[in-house]
Amino acid sequence: MNYGIDIWGGNNFFIENGKLKVNFGNQPALIDIIKEIEERGFQGPILLRFPHLIRKQINSLYSAFNKAIKEFNYKGKFHAVFPLKVNQFPTFVKPLIKIANKFNYGLEAGSKAELILAMAYNNKNAPITINGFKDKDMIRLAFIAGFMGYDVTITIEGLNELNSIIEVSKEYEKIPVNIGIRIRLHTSGVGIWAKSGGIESKFGLSSTEIIEAIDILKKEKMLDKLKMIHFHIGSQINDISPLKKAIRESGNIYADLRKMGAKNLSAINIGGGLAIEYSQWEEKRDKNYSIEEFSNDVVYLLKEISQKKEVPMPDIFTESGRFIASPSTILIAPVIELFSQEYHEKNLKLKDKNPDLVEELYDLYKTINENNYIEYFHDALDHFESLLTLFDLGIIDLIDRSNSEILVNLMIKKAITYATLKGFKNKDLKSINEKIQEKYLANFSIFQSLPDFWGLGQRFPIMPLTKLNITPTRSATIWDITCDSDGEIPFSKEYPLYLHDVDLEKEDYYLGFFLVGAYQEILGMKHNLFSYTNEAIINFDIEGNYEIEFLEPTQKIREILIDLDYDIDEIERLLKNKLEIINDEEERKEILGELFLLLNDMIYLKND
Amino acid sequence: MNYGIDIWGGNNFFIENGKLKVNFGNQPALIDIIKEIEERGFQGPILLRFPHLIRKQINSLYSAFNKAIKEFNYKGKFHAVFPLKVNQFPTFVKPLIKIANKFNYGLEAGSKAELILAMAYNNKNAPITINGFKDKDMIRLAFIAGFMGYDVTITIEGLNELNSIIEVSKEYEKIPVNIGIRIRLHTSGVGIWAKSGGIESKFGLSSTEIIEAIDILKKEKMLDKLKMIHFHIGSQINDISPLKKAIRESGNIYADLRKMGAKNLSAINIGGGLAIEYSQWEEKRDKNYSIEEFSNDVVYLLKEISQKKEVPMPDIFTESGRFIASPSTILIAPVIELFSQEYHEKNLKLKDKNPDLVEELYDLYKTINENNYIEYFHDALDHFESLLTLFDLGIIDLIDRSNSEILVNLMIKKAITYATLKGFKNKDLKSINEKIQEKYLANFSIFQSLPDFWGLGQRFPIMPLTKLNITPTRSATIWDITCDSDGEIPFSKEYPLYLHDVDLEKEDYYLGFFLVGAYQEILGMKHNLFSYTNEAIINFDIEGNYEIEFLEPTQKIREILIDLDYDIDEIERLLKNKLEIINDEEERKEILGELFLLLNDMIYLKND
Repeated sequence: MNYGIDIWGGNNFFIENGKLKVNFGNQPALIDIIKEIEERGFQGPILLRFPHLIRKQINSLYSAFNKAIKEFNYKGKFHAVFPLKVNQFPTFVKPLIKIANKFNYGLEAGSKAELILAMAYNNKNAPITINGFKDKDMIRLAFIAGFMGYDVTITIEGLNELNSIIEVSKEYEKIPVNIGIRIRLHTSGVGIWAKSGGIESKFGLSSTEIIEAIDILKKEKMLDKLKMIHFHIGSQINDISPLKKAIRESGNIYADLRKMGAKNLSAINIGGGLAIEYSQWEEKRDKNYSIEEFSNDVVYLLKEISQKKEVPMPDIFTESGRFIASPSTILIAPVIELFSQEYHEKNLKLKDKNPDLVEELYDLYKTINENNYIEYFHDALDHFESLLTLFDLGIIDLIDRSNSEILVNLMIKKAITYATLKGFKNKDLKSINEKIQEKYLANFSIFQSLPDFWGLGQRFPIMPLTKLNITPTRSATIWDITCDSDGEIPFSKEYPLYLHDVDLEKEDYYLGFFLVGAYQEILGMKHNLFSYTNEAIINFDIEGNYEIEFLEPTQKIREILIDLDYDIDEIERLLKNKLEIINDEEERKEILGELFLLLNDMIYLKND
Repeated sequence: MNYGIDIWGGNNFFIENGKLKVNFGNQPALIDIIKEIEERGFQGPILLRFPHLIRKQINSLYSAFNKAIKEFNYKGKFHAVFPLKVNQFPTFVKPLIKIANKFNYGLEAGSKAELILAMAYNNKNAPITINGFKDKDMIRLAFIAGFMGYDVTITIEGLNELNSIIEVSKEYEKIPVNIGIRIRLHTSGVGIWAKSGGIESKFGLSSTEIIEAIDILKKEKMLDKLKMIHFHIGSQINDISPLKKAIRESGNIYADLRKMGAKNLSAINIGGGLAIEYSQWEEKRDKNYSIEEFSNDVVYLLKEISQKKEVPMPDIFTESGRFIASPSTILIAPVIELFSQEYHEKNLKLKDKNPDLVEELYDLYKTINENNYIEYFHDALDHFESLLTLFDLGIIDLIDRSNSEILVNLMIKKAITYATLKGFKNKDLKSINEKIQEKYLANFSIFQSLPDFWGLGQRFPIMPLTKLNITPTRSATIWDITCDSDGEIPFSKEYPLYLHDVDLEKEDYYLGFFLVGAYQEILGMKHNLFSYTNEAIINFDIEGNYEIEFLEPTQKIREILIDLDYDIDEIERLLKNKLEIINDEEERKEILGELFLLLNDMIYLKND
C-alpha cells in the first residue's frame, strides 16, 4: 500500500522505515519536520512549502521545451511566466522569484493588485503578461511597468480594451508595452476547467474581431506593437489532442497575421494547462501525456506550420501555473478523533419482555451460521427497517431501538465474516462491507484548505505520514472540523482510502494532503471562522540539511475578529462587563484572565 | 417581465415607473440609493444591507410559531438562535442583536471564534447554543459564557465531547451550562445540503451512543444537566415531509429519554433548514411549504407524540439562519461592457478569388429565402465546419475564415427571421436562436460574492434595477471580471434571463443579486485578489426616510497586499527603485506620483 505515490509523487517523496520522506538533501521524514515544528509550540494544521520543488518544476518546464527546440532545430525561443492568480502569497512568490532569475521566468497578472505585485517583484528583464478585463488604470499601470524596463505585453480581451490602450497611449509620449490578442478558438477545452476554450468561451476575439483589431492598429500606426497572440484552453489539460488542434489553429492565425503586416508579431502564448497528476489510482489517471510529449508536440507543430506558411517560427510562451505551483505545497492535518460504529454484545439491554421483532432478531443473531447467513442477513435488515418504523410510531422505545441496532450490526459483522470466507458472492453484503467506514476527524477545514474539492470535486492525493510499513485495514472517510456536512471527503468502494487503526490517546497520526500549491490558498474560505493554517518554508542548506526558514502561526481568535472588522477593544470591554455578574472579585479576576488568554487561542482545535 | 419578483421577493420590493423600489418607509428606488452612494465617491460592486428585512424575518419566525402554539394549545415555549456561521460580519450581527432583544433571540456558535462573538454580543438572558467539534478550550469558553449568566447549551457531537465536558467541569466549582445531544436520525435530509441528515451523516449519536451518554451522565450525577436534543437535516429543506419524519423520530427519542430519568430534558432543537425561495421561475420553486405550515407541523406533531407518550410537551428550538439572513442583503454590480456577436455585411472582405466553399456560402447567403431557409441553413453550417477544418490545415486564410464566420452568422440571422414568422418548427434553429446570448460583463467577482453559485450551483434571483417598464429583449449570460472561465452565470433556454439593450456610453445599468445575506460573505474567495465589495447599511428613520447609516469602501490594492502579508513599505521601495531607470527626474517624479496614487486604487474596475 503506497497510496499511489508512484503515480502522483513525481519521485519527490519516498517511503522508508514506515515514514514518508522527502527525496532531497538529507531526506528528512515529514513527520520529523512536523515534530520539530510542534516542539516550537505550533499545533494544528500546517502548510509546508518546499521551494526546491518549485525549482524542480520550473527547471523541468524549461528543460523540456529547450530540448525540443534543440531537437527540432526550432528557430523561436521559449519563454514562460507564472500566473499570479495561482498563488499570490509572499511565502510562495518570493522563493519563486529567486529561482526564476536564472531562467528569466516572468509573471502574469490578471488584476490591478496582481500587476502591482508583478511590478514590485518580477526580475529585471523578465516578461510580464497582463490578461483579464482592464480599466484604464490597469493599462496605466502596464505602461508604468513598461517604463520600468520590463518586457510588458497587454493581452486584449475585447476591442474596447484596444481602444482604451489607444486612449491611454495619448497620455504618454511613447508606448512602452507590446500588445497581445487573446484569440477565440473553435477548438474547445477539456476537463473540469473546460469552459476556457471554444467558441462560446468567456474570453477572446473572433476571427472577424481580430481583423478589425488589425485594421484599428494599422489606422493608429500601432501595428508594430502587436507582438503576441494568446489562447488558453483550460488550466488542467487532461488530454493532449485538443491542445494539438489549438496549436494548429493558432499557428495559422499567427502566420496569416504576419502576412497581413504584423511584422513584429513574434510569439504565440499557449496559456496554461500543463496538467498535474492528482490521481492515487492507476485507472483514474488525470492526464495522458508527459511534459516531453507536450513540449515536443507544441514545438513540432509550430515548426511545421511556420515552414508551410513561410513565416519565421514564433517564440513560444507558456503561462502554466498549476504545473509550477502544485507540488511545492503540502497540507498536513493531525487526526484528532476516530468515529467508528463499533457495536458490542455487552451493550445490549434486553428486557424481560422484548418486542416480538427484537426477540426474532435476537434468535436470528444466535443462530446465524455459514449456511444460512445470506437469508438471515436479509431477514435482519428487513426486521430493522420495521423496527425503525415502529420506533417512529412510538410503539417500541429507544432501548429496543438500540438493541435492534446492536443486533443488526453484530449480524452484519458475522455475515461479512462468513462472506469473506466464501469470496463475497452476495452483492448486498459486499456493498455493505465496502460501506463500513471509519471516520477520521482531522483538524482542518476543507473550505479553507481544499476549496477546489468543495467547488469542483477535485481530488488531492492523501496519505498518512507514518505507519507506512503496516498494512492499513480501515476503509476511511475524512471529516473536517467545520459545522458543515459538506466538510467531508468521502471515498467510494471503487476508489477507497485505507488508513491505520490508531489509538490517539497513545500516538499521533497525521494526514498529508499533497499537490495543494495551486489556487487552494487564495480560494480559501473562512467558514465557521476557520481561516489560514500554520505555514512553514522548508529549505535545504548546501550540505543538504533541511531548515525551517520561516514559520508563521495559524490565525488567533482575536485576529480573525479584527479581520472581520470588529473593534477588538469593544469586544474585550463587553466581555469584561458581562463578567461583572460574578460577585467574588478573585473568582472574577481569575476567569477574566482565563478568558483573555482564550481570546488568543488559535482558531483551530487544540490537541487535548 | 417582472423577473419572478412575486415568487422570491416576499413583497419586499416592487416595480414602479420602471424602477425597482424598496417596499418600506418612503419606498426609495434602489437605483436612487446607489446614485447617492456613487455621489459620495463609491464605485464598483456594493452590498446593501436592510436591517428592516432582518426584523421582518425574525418577526415572521416568532409569529408563526407563537401562533401555532396558541392555536394548538401547546404547552412548550418557542425559542430560536441565529447560527453565526451564516453571517458573522459586524454590519449584519450588530443590527441583528438590536432587533433580537425584544424576542430574546439568541446566537449559535460552531467554533471558538464564533463563541467569543456570541459571548460579547448576545443579549442578556438570550440563549446560546454551541455545536460543532470542540476542544477543551471551547468547553471552557462555554463555561465562562455560563458564568456570565447566559442560558448556554453545549451540544455534544460524540461521546468524547461528553468526557471533555466532565473533565472541564472538574476545573470549576459548578456546571453553569446545559448539555444537549445531537441525535443521528435514520430519516435523511433533502436538497443540495442533504448530507446533514441520515444514518451516514457526519454528525450525531446513534441510539446506542445516546443510551451510553445517559449512563455516563447518570454515573457522573449530571443527568439533570441534559436539557436538549438536537438534529439538523439540511440548511435548505425544500420538502416538508422529511422534516415531519424527523420530528416524529426525535419526539419519540425525547419522550423515551424523559422516561429514562432525564427529568430536565425539556427542549427539542430542530436545527436550521427553513427554506428560502430563490427561484425566479414558477416551475422551479425551491420549497413546497409556507412558514405557517412548517410551524404548524412541528407544533402539532410534538404535541401528538407528547400526549401519546404522556410526557410534558417540549420547548421548541430552531437554528434557522438562511431564513433570517438571506433577504436582508443585496449585491448590486454595475454592468461595464456588453459583448455581443453582431456581424455586419460591411465587414466582409471578399477577395477577387475566394475559396470555392466561401463562394458557395456567399451564394447561399444571397439566395436564402423563406422557402429554402432550413435547407440553406443546414448547408451553411456544414460549409462552415469544413471551412474551419481547411483553416486549421492552412488551406484558407484568416480573411476567408472571417468571411465565412460573417456569412454564416448573417444567414443564421435571416433563417431565424424566417423561422420566427413560421413559429420555429425547426429544432436546430430554435436551439440556435436560444443560444444567441448577449454577454453582460458586470463589475464583481462570482468567487467573492456568490461562492455558493460556484460551489453548489445555487442560483440567486437576478434583475436589473431600472428600465423595468421596457420589455427586455436580450437573452443574457453574465460574466464577472475574474480571469476565470468559471466566472460566468449562464442561463439555459428553459430558464433564460432577458436583459435590456443598453448603450453604456450613455447610460448606467445595474444588476441586483438578491437573497445573498446567508453564507456568501464568509465563503467569499479572493480569486485574482478581488476581495470584499463596498458595503452600506440602509436604515429608515421614524418618518420612513431612508438613510445610509454606514458606508465602507471596497478594499484598496494596498490593503489586499497587506492582507496577504506583504510588507507594503518593501513594495513601495521596490516600485520606487524600479523607476530609477527613468533619467528625466521630473518625468520620474510624475510617474512615481501616479503610481502611488494607483496603489490606492480600488481592486475592482473603475467606470472609465
